[in-house]
Amino acid sequence: MKVMIDLCVIPLGVGTSVSTYVTACQRVLQDAGLSHQMHGYGTNIEGEWDEVFAAVKRCHEVVHEMGAVRISSSMRIGTRTDREQSIDDKINSVKTKLAE
Amino acid sequence: MKVMIDLCVIPLGVGTSVSTYVTACQRVLQDAGLSHQMHGYGTNIEGEWDEVFAAVKRCHEVVHEMGAVRISSSMRIGTRTDREQSIDDKINSVKTKLAE
Amino acid sequence: MKVMIDLCVIPLGVGTSVSTYVTACQRVLQDAGLSHQMHGYGTNIEGEWDEVFAAVKRCHEVVHEMGAVRISSSMRIGTRTDREQSIDDKINSVKTKLAE
Amino acid sequence: MKVMIDLCVIPLGVGTSVSTYVTACQRVLQDAGLSHQMHGYGTNIEGEWDEVFAAVKRCHEVVHEMGAVRISSSMRIGTRTDREQSIDDKINSVKTKLAE
Repeated sequence: MKVMIDLCVIPLGVGTSVSTYVTACQRVLQDAGLSHQMHGYGTNIEGEWDEVFAAVKRCHEVVHEMGAVRISSSMRIGTRTDREQSIDDKINSVKTKLAE
Repeated sequence: MKVMIDLCVIPLGVGTSVSTYVTACQRVLQDAGLSHQMHGYGTNIEGEWDEVFAAVKRCHEVVHEMGAVRISSSMRIGTRTDREQSIDDKINSVKTKLAE
Repeated sequence: MKVMIDLCVIPLGVGTSVSTYVTACQRVLQDAGLSHQMHGYGTNIEGEWDEVFAAVKRCHEVVHEMGAVRISSSMRIGTRTDREQSIDDKINSVKTKLAE
Repeated sequence: MKVMIDLCVIPLGVGTSVSTYVTACQRVLQDAGLSHQMHGYGTNIEGEWDEVFAAVKRCHEVVHEMGAVRISSSMRIGTRTDREQSIDDKINSVKTKLAE
């Protein structure tokens, strides 16, 4: 089962600057070889369910290892069985309609 | 790694009544033997990371099998390494302060 | 327009214990006279759109006044035009089906 | 109070293709003159709290007017009192660290 998620990882108790932790998560996604795209309030990730969620778990593990004792993430999870649709497909579908 | 999540599964393309699908997900959680508590806009679930996320995957699979071709879930994910804290612990901590 | 939301307010840079801030938000909701119900990972709130969102804004203001310089909340927002449905209606609809 | 949100509007009961509704929301944001950036699973929006949330309300109203009788949105809400930080600032902060 393919999945597209949008993930935002928030470490607690480490001050207000979280970019070091976000950067570590980006490296986890790169190392996992997953298609992903960061935006201003999270990251789109797509791939096979098990691979995507293994990377999400690895993000939590890595951020804990960096010293954050508490993490609260929020996530959207999209699956569909009718057809495959990539991140870019979704964006282009709206952009085409906006240009009409 | 223990995890507490809050999950809201939304099937698309099956009309506006989603309680049949929510009920099926509750059964998935019961069958998995996971501690969980439904509220008005989602369900708290706690347990070992792998067991909890296996149940989330099963929810998506079951809802697809029931005929929903598209699902969009939203989830909060909480982990902590400093101490164990159950759903009830969290609620009681606030209720105690509210009563002060 | 009536709305039902599920809100989870997360203060950053104030340590890992957030129950003092959650308690302050519960007081905001009580003072606003809004129907609300706390669970283990957020709070259900229902009412008129403008009143509910005024309370959400007040929560952010109060938590900042308490010393948190950064807040990241997550929220689900439900509206429907076909019929009114309370938090309890939604829960009972699933509980009835579970008992069948 | 400035705010940055990430919004994902999901209309229920209108089939599985939601791009027409997402497009309408993009127009609402354009008409409101709000800085915003669509991604594969939502849209970043930044501005003054009241203006941003007026636009969110307008999105729900417009999608209902288009025929969706039920909507379930998910949103992240970020506020900070220590300094101003734009969507681009946040992204660049991580990109700089990734390149180190």
